[in-house]
Amino acid sequence: MEPFNIAIIGCGTVGGGTAKIIGEINESLANRAGRIINLSKIIELDAPSAIARFGLAPGLFCGGGKKISPQEAEKYISEILNDKKIHLVVETIGGTGNFVHDLCVNICKSGKHLVSANKALLAERGKEIFEAAEKNNVSVGFEAAVCGAIPIIKTIKESFTGDEIISVSGILNGTSNYILSRMLDEGLGFEQALKLAQEAGYAEADPTLDIGGGDAAHKLIILMKLIFGIDVSMEQLKYQGIQNISSNDMDYAKEIDSAFKLICYAKRDGNTIYGTVCPMMVKNNNFLSGVKGATNAVRTINRYSGKHILIGAGAGSTETASSIVADIMFIARYSTSMQKNLLSNKLEFKGLSSFTFPFVITFETEDRPGITGLVTTEIGKQNVNIYTVTHNRHIQDGALFSVETQPCTLKQINAAIKEIKASGILKSDPKVFPILY
Amino acid sequence: MEPFNIAIIGCGTVGGGTAKIIGEINESLANRAGRIINLSKIIELDAPSAIARFGLAPGLFCGGGKKISPQEAEKYISEILNDKKIHLVVETIGGTGNFVHDLCVNICKSGKHLVSANKALLAERGKEIFEAAEKNNVSVGFEAAVCGAIPIIKTIKESFTGDEIISVSGILNGTSNYILSRMLDEGLGFEQALKLAQEAGYAEADPTLDIGGGDAAHKLIILMKLIFGIDVSMEQLKYQGIQNISSNDMDYAKEIDSAFKLICYAKRDGNTIYGTVCPMMVKNNNFLSGVKGATNAVRTINRYSGKHILIGAGAGSTETASSIVADIMFIARYSTSMQKNLLSNKLEFKGLSSFTFPFVITFETEDRPGITGLVTTEIGKQNVNIYTVTHNRHIQDGALFSVETQPCTLKQINAAIKEIKASGILKSDPKVFPILY
Repeated sequence: MEPFNIAIIGCGTVGGGTAKIIGEINESLANRAGRIINLSKIIELDAPSAIARFGLAPGLFCGGGKKISPQEAEKYISEILNDKKIHLVVETIGGTGNFVHDLCVNICKSGKHLVSANKALLAERGKEIFEAAEKNNVSVGFEAAVCGAIPIIKTIKESFTGDEIISVSGILNGTSNYILSRMLDEGLGFEQALKLAQEAGYAEADPTLDIGGGDAAHKLIILMKLIFGIDVSMEQLKYQGIQNISSNDMDYAKEIDSAFKLICYAKRDGNTIYGTVCPMMVKNNNFLSGVKGATNAVRTINRYSGKHILIGAGAGSTETASSIVADIMFIARYSTSMQKNLLSNKLEFKGLSSFTFPFVITFETEDRPGITGLVTTEIGKQNVNIYTVTHNRHIQDGALFSVETQPCTLKQINAAIKEIKASGILKSDPKVFPILY
Repeated sequence: MEPFNIAIIGCGTVGGGTAKIIGEINESLANRAGRIINLSKIIELDAPSAIARFGLAPGLFCGGGKKISPQEAEKYISEILNDKKIHLVVETIGGTGNFVHDLCVNICKSGKHLVSANKALLAERGKEIFEAAEKNNVSVGFEAAVCGAIPIIKTIKESFTGDEIISVSGILNGTSNYILSRMLDEGLGFEQALKLAQEAGYAEADPTLDIGGGDAAHKLIILMKLIFGIDVSMEQLKYQGIQNISSNDMDYAKEIDSAFKLICYAKRDGNTIYGTVCPMMVKNNNFLSGVKGATNAVRTINRYSGKHILIGAGAGSTETASSIVADIMFIARYSTSMQKNLLSNKLEFKGLSSFTFPFVITFETEDRPGITGLVTTEIGKQNVNIYTVTHNRHIQDGALFSVETQPCTLKQINAAIKEIKASGILKSDPKVFPILY
């Protein structure tokens, strides 16, 4: 069989890892695919750095291994798009701008398969790319875009095909999980743990996308598209991050045998898909609660096969690249066109405010008799069943006081909070977190 | 595209679950596969029971839903093998006899794809079946043969293709894990826990295959074949079961932050594959230690992507059947022929006695001064580094006394034990268990 020719555009952490793996295990890749996986060209502005970092041959690079200008890069890109011999292009530039968006669309339009790790692009602007792929009968491989090394995309596309996924919950952002793990294990505050994550290279100088939940939201949007065939925007999803979790919140989670995790959650109920990204108190008998550090994990609950959990590296150079190479291999072997959505997309999306979930509400109040009665009475008036009340954390000038509810909606809880606020006993806005069993 | 026609031979727990899923979600299967998955025929001696149990239409059964004789079944089988319209046959009869072996070979020879959950057959007599499949350019789907619902086979075949698996360790037998979990959590003895497993339907009346390690060994043999391309016999593997784990052993495991698990383990080192099935003390920071009840789990350590863990249902009707349907779907979509082995099979197999592993050795000795010195001196003489010595369990007429070693071989340990035995201080044969970090 003829060699399968690929090009890589962007040779940073993930693109470079991809080139490295293809070089190092080329023979076994050929054995498995039944054809040679031939890396014909790499386009990278700063080729010398990539060569030094990944030990690659300068001859692989357009420009012979020298630095090239953006104009030169564009010229080389257009050569690749016009090269009939190239079967597949790996996009590892990143970003969501028009340049990379149009590049991905044009790769598909040129009849070449596309493999990308670009979760932000696929989540926010994927529609046109997937449509171009479908129209031109080429594949878009995006295993590397969700959970780095964990093969969750292929598991859903190729292994859960004899089943129906009812819900998915996951730890999809390693940085926030690293921070939460250090807060839990060492009793650190959020700011302190964030600083350590930055020092350890897990968090960017501007960590907003990670700790604010945006990165996790991108991944959940891709998963919901794949599992339920539904297009959800970042605005619809109303994601939250981990910035507001205090040491007191961490302590309370411990008290109820839980650990805080930034959870991506989506569930189908009839024709409605409920989805959210927010910090949840995950009960310790759920495997997700034990996932520490920068590790990622996904749990699905399936109609016929029950609970599945996948745990693995969520980021890293060769870790993420191994998923890109797996996509290349799959396309080289099966030359598949796009996967049909597992469900029709005639489904309605609803965010956290419509969920039925057990919640923890933490109130900061005056420390005097009568308050428990007032708060729990208001909660009861909203038809919310209370599971436990914990009132043992006396702080300066007041008390922290948590109520764990039976499953109810956030709407019910907010109605109760409104009444409690009106009574004037609250010293700050209550905090509300879902509990994941 | 023309419908993909399949037949099921054997409509018990797994075959019936398969028919049920195909009936219930036929429309979404067709959407995903791009063609109708048409269950044309079922052969089952006791059709009335299968119909009642799985709510299937009598018309699906050869014989119209009535009981049929083995002779009639053979006639129907030969009709299916000669039916050019049937693309794939699901074998869910079970057993390793000539009848089912020859049936599987003949399915392949007739140019039909084969899907089977029969781990014992594929492990002990798979060679001829896989060869027949390769020669006739058909697939053998066996996702359901290893870990029921967990998609470990497709993960290895289709997702870890951009990587190299260095080692695999897993809890592949739900029955023994159920027994070990009850022993650990409730302090039960082995016999008592086995009885409860039988009452709960997890263990057969004759539980030998499960508790003796044979079933787990079958699954490890299939995994080693798939991952390393090596054929290992049951005799070579020298598997052990969980029958000899005492409450004292369980207590000691707890003491060193571990839990006993029946572990299937294989590792590549150069051109040698080390493999074993035996009870190990699994450290609690390894996810496998927290896998409770009849659940299964597999951990791989990969060259480029590091640690992966998959957890899910190891058995059950629709759980296992969902894996069979996934195999049917994969073949219907990609009509793949056999997967090439990930490695060449020019590898040598070695069993537990050649491993380098940390071990726990537990001695039952007289309770008097001098013994610790004698034992540890003999161990040191074999060049084995000792990690900890625990001598705090005084029992009637003696003491239980455990030594945790640094990584060494069983050969070294056995040499030390021989010398210690000769000194006459042992009241019984020492127990030796590997520790899995």
